[in-house]
Amino acid sequence: MRLRHKPWAKQLIEEHPEYVISSVSQLQTSWKELFGNDNPVYVEVGTGKGKFLDNMSRAYPNINFIGIEKSESVLVMGLQRLLNEYQSNVRFINGDVLDLLEFFQPGEVDRLFINFTDPWPKNKHEKRRLTYNRFLSLYEKVMSDGAEIHMKTDNQGLFEYSLESMSRYGMTLKNISMDLHNSDKEDNIITEYEEKFYQKGQRIFRLESFFSSSISS
Amino acid sequence: MRLRHKPWAKQLIEEHPEYVISSVSQLQTSWKELFGNDNPVYVEVGTGKGKFLDNMSRAYPNINFIGIEKSESVLVMGLQRLLNEYQSNVRFINGDVLDLLEFFQPGEVDRLFINFTDPWPKNKHEKRRLTYNRFLSLYEKVMSDGAEIHMKTDNQGLFEYSLESMSRYGMTLKNISMDLHNSDKEDNIITEYEEKFYQKGQRIFRLESFFSSSISS
Ligand SMILES: C[S@@+](CC[C@H](N)C(=O)[O-])C[C@H]1O[C@@H](n2cnc3c(N)ncnc32)[C@H](O)[C@@H]1O
Ligand SMILES: C[S@@+](CC[C@H](N)C(=O)[O-])C[C@H]1O[C@@H](n2cnc3c(N)ncnc32)[C@H](O)[C@@H]1O
Repeated sequence: MRLRHKPWAKQLIEEHPEYVISSVSQLQTSWKELFGNDNPVYVEVGTGKGKFLDNMSRAYPNINFIGIEKSESVLVMGLQRLLNEYQSNVRFINGDVLDLLEFFQPGEVDRLFINFTDPWPKNKHEKRRLTYNRFLSLYEKVMSDGAEIHMKTDNQGLFEYSLESMSRYGMTLKNISMDLHNSDKEDNIITEYEEKFYQKGQRIFRLESFFSSSISS
Repeated sequence: MRLRHKPWAKQLIEEHPEYVISSVSQLQTSWKELFGNDNPVYVEVGTGKGKFLDNMSRAYPNINFIGIEKSESVLVMGLQRLLNEYQSNVRFINGDVLDLLEFFQPGEVDRLFINFTDPWPKNKHEKRRLTYNRFLSLYEKVMSDGAEIHMKTDNQGLFEYSLESMSRYGMTLKNISMDLHNSDKEDNIITEYEEKFYQKGQRIFRLESFFSSSISS
């Protein structure tokens, strides 16, 4: 996401620790306590401007949503939306997915979304892809038993890489779609990037996966 | 598989009902009784000349293998191999996969292989693809609980179609590889077509899947 650097973004974020957690010291309780209820917790990694989270939180008021985004100048737009139209079931983390274990306890995440994450097409950048082995093992540590990862992307290379990386990790996959908008999925909630790519007529790829400790091979 | 029509093929097959079942009337017992043991039963649909089955039956002597092939002129080569080098754990069915329910009882099949099946790339031929919905429902009826389908193909279109078709059917997938011969799978047993395509430098795609009645979504 190429955006002008916004010097005021960092400041606005710092002024709203009730909506955006920037460091683990701001997180004194569990997420369930923070939301004040026992609803499931769904996390989007690389949430961008938070459009998907906004749509989701309205469609599913009984689920709590947390978006993780490292870029302040992008995240601030999600914060501004929240300040204008408050959604009690949305929060943000301004941080790197690499630090996931600082922000979540084991089993705290009930679903994880990876939407239109940077493809990093060069082999030497494999480790930066959010479906690289190391990231999967972070997700596994914070996710509850049987919890699912839902991924969407316009990038076929990243999609194929992710199918393989998850397979190699021993994950199980389902509901794979190679052309989401020409499939029969009815409850698709669109992300910012998805809208852009879809309007250009590009195929959208989608998968669901889970860590399958309990399933026999 | 384009081969000259061999008028003698049908005759040779008919002379060996102990190795090739051509009609359900020749099958008076269960497959376990026919093999004379309780070993698992693995089936290859569209087995061609039976090279894969031959390799598998040597690598896994404690498993029974059955190859289904509708073309006599192809199947006869598998039969001839069996006549020259007898393998007690190999049998053939000379028939159409569409008639699967005539040849197998519910739960009788412990694994099913779909190797380099005809891609039928035109949309109007979708129904002929061996991973079309209707075939999946036949497989489900004869397969034991949790039994797996293992599929290999050189054809990316067919592979993507199969990922989607199985997903739509509610199947679960794992061990997806987009380039089998550059992956770390060590126990790959090669088929006739695989050898040909591999030598041409083409990518081989592979998946495992199963019917997931017992797994929560
Ligand atoms: C291409 S955008 C997609 C935004 C949104 N998910 C969508 O579908 O519209 C990817 C976002 O992920 C963020 N991102 C990438 N790697 C990250 C990481 N390791 N930690 C946190 N955010 C990350 C980027 O800053 C960028 O805003
Ligand atoms: C392309 S060959 C592949 C042979 C072998 N599996 C391999 O990998 O080398 C496909 C075979 O499937 C057979 N076949 C296709 N549809 C079939 C069906 N409905 N019933 C039985 N055999 C079928 C064809 O006759 C052909 O011999």
